Amino acid sequence: MAVPSFEPADAGFADRVRASFERQGALKTFNVALTAVEPGRSVMEFPWSEQVTQQHGFVHAGVLGAVMDTACGYAAFSLMPADAAVLTIEYKVNLLAPARGQLFRVQGEVLKPGRTITVSEGRAWALDGEKEKLVATMTCTLMAVFGREGIQH
Amino acid sequence: MAVPSFEPADAGFADRVRASFERQGALKTFNVALTAVEPGRSVMEFPWSEQVTQQHGFVHAGVLGAVMDTACGYAAFSLMPADAAVLTIEYKVNLLAPARGQLFRVQGEVLKPGRTITVSEGRAWALDGEKEKLVATMTCTLMAVFGREGIQH
Amino acid sequence: MAVPSFEPADAGFADRVRASFERQGALKTFNVALTAVEPGRSVMEFPWSEQVTQQHGFVHAGVLGAVMDTACGYAAFSLMPADAAVLTIEYKVNLLAPARGQLFRVQGEVLKPGRTITVSEGRAWALDGEKEKLVATMTCTLMAVFGREGIQH
Amino acid sequence: MAVPSFEPADAGFADRVRASFERQGALKTFNVALTAVEPGRSVMEFPWSEQVTQQHGFVHAGVLGAVMDTACGYAAFSLMPADAAVLTIEYKVNLLAPARGQLFRVQGEVLKPGRTITVSEGRAWALDGEKEKLVATMTCTLMAVFGREGIQH
Repeated sequence: MAVPSFEPADAGFADRVRASFERQGALKTFNVALTAVEPGRSVMEFPWSEQVTQQHGFVHAGVLGAVMDTACGYAAFSLMPADAAVLTIEYKVNLLAPARGQLFRVQGEVLKPGRTITVSEGRAWALDGEKEKLVATMTCTLMAVFGREGIQH
Repeated sequence: MAVPSFEPADAGFADRVRASFERQGALKTFNVALTAVEPGRSVMEFPWSEQVTQQHGFVHAGVLGAVMDTACGYAAFSLMPADAAVLTIEYKVNLLAPARGQLFRVQGEVLKPGRTITVSEGRAWALDGEKEKLVATMTCTLMAVFGREGIQH
Repeated sequence: MAVPSFEPADAGFADRVRASFERQGALKTFNVALTAVEPGRSVMEFPWSEQVTQQHGFVHAGVLGAVMDTACGYAAFSLMPADAAVLTIEYKVNLLAPARGQLFRVQGEVLKPGRTITVSEGRAWALDGEKEKLVATMTCTLMAVFGREGIQH
Repeated sequence: MAVPSFEPADAGFADRVRASFERQGALKTFNVALTAVEPGRSVMEFPWSEQVTQQHGFVHAGVLGAVMDTACGYAAFSLMPADAAVLTIEYKVNLLAPARGQLFRVQGEVLKPGRTITVSEGRAWALDGEKEKLVATMTCTLMAVFGREGIQH
C-alpha cells in the first residue's frame, strides 16, 4: 500500500486528531498511543496486556478491530474540513494469524477520500522480539457529518 | 432472525462456553456478562462506562464489534465437538445508529453451521431508559480448529 | 428476518423500481425477473443457465452477488424520494452452500433506512426440485444521491 | 500492494488456472479475458458492453464483484496443490467511483496463503481513453477443498 499524498482541507489537522484521540476512553483502556499523524494516515501502538486478551491469551480480534477502526477513522478525519465530525459506517476485518506478541502496531490509510464518504484501509502487525508479522487487515467506510447534535470532532 | 433449532455435538456445550468466557481478559475490561447460552446462540450485556467510549462519549464501534465477535464465536463454539477450538476468520460490522444508552445487549446466532466453517450473525442493541434500539449488526465467519498448539477452547 | 413496515417517501415507488430495473443490461443477461416490489423489499428470480455458471457448473458467486446487490439496491430505492438515485457504497457476501439448482430466488430487505445511508440485507435461495436452500447472504450499504450528473434513478 | 513472491505448490499452476477459467460460463458472458497468471496473482480484462451494465449505463457493481471474485480465486488457486479445488467463503466489495470506461482491468492478489484458508485482495480499474481509475476493491476469503463430490478444479 503505497501512500498517495493527500492534501488536508485544514492545516490544523494533526492537532484536531490528537485532541479527539485524547477523548477516547476505550483506547486509554487498551493503552494505545498515537505514534504518527499525516495527511490521510495515522499509526498507533499498544502493548500486550491482560486487558486486551481473548481466551487463548492472544490479543482479542475485536480489540484489533477497535484500534484499526480508530486508525482508519483518524486517517479519514485528517483530510476533512475543520468543522466535520467523522462516523464509521461499516468495517470489515480479516484475521490472518493469531495476534501473539509484546507490541502491536496499527496503521490506517485513506484509499479514497470523498466529500461525504471516505474509504480507509487498516493493517495490524504483531511485534514479537525481532519478528514483525501482519496479523489483521481492515476495510473501513467513513462518513463526514456536519452540525449533528452530540457529535463533534 | 428466527433461531433454527440446532443440535449441539457436545452436551456439555454451555459449560465449555462459560469456562472459555471466563478467560477473556478484554471482556472483563468491558464488564461484559454472559447472560444466555443456547445451542447456536449466545447473549451478552455490558453497561456504559468510560472504558468503552469513543470521542463523543458513545460506545466505541470497535468495542461493539469486539463483543459481537465474541457472541458470534460462542454461538458457533456451542455447536462444535468438545475437542474443537474456534477461531474468527473475518467479521464485518455495520453501525446503524450512535451507541448511546446505559446498557448494551449483544446477541450472536449461528446462521449456517459447518464441520470446518460456521457463519454467525450478530446484533447489538442500546437500552436507553425504556427505549431499545438496534445499533449495530455483524456477519462473522469462524473456523473450528483441532489440535493446534496454543489454541484451546 | 421479519420485515418491519416502512413508509415509502414516494407513492410511485414500484413504478420507479420497475422502470429502473428495465434498464439493467446485466440483469437481462442473467434472465432475472423482478417478482415483487414492496416498501423496503424486492424479490427477483432467475433460472440456471450456462451464462451464469462458474467452473463447476453452479451459479457463480459473483452473479449471486450481482443479483443480491440489485435486490438490496431496489429495496433501499423503494423508500427514497422520487428525485433520488441510489448508489451502492459497499457489499459483503457470504456463500453458505454451492448454488446448485434450477431456479434461484433473491430477496433484498431494508434493515435501516436513512436520509443519506441505507443498510439492506440480501438472501439467495437455490430451488432444486422440491428443495429450497439458503445459499448466500449479503449486507449492503447504499447512498441516496441527488442531482449528480449521469446518475439518474 | 507490493506483491510478495510466493512459491506455487504445483509447477503446472498456470495451466490449471487457464483450464478452469475456460469452464466459467459467466465470465464468457462478460467477455472476460485472462491476461496474466503468476504465483499468487491473476489479471483479467473485459470491455464495456450492454451485457454488463446497470441502470445508469456503467458497469454493474455486481459484475465487477464477480470478476474480482474470480481473479481473487485464481490468485489463491495458483498456490494450491494440484488436487485442490477452491471455494469462495466470502467477499467484500467497496465501490470507489462509477465504473465508467471502455475497458476494465481486474487484479487478484494473495495477501495471506494458507493450507485451508487463503485471503486475497482484488482491485478493479476503469480505463477511459488515456485515464485509468481505481473503481473498486475487494477482500476475499477462500478455502482449499479436497475430494469433495462435484467440485473439481
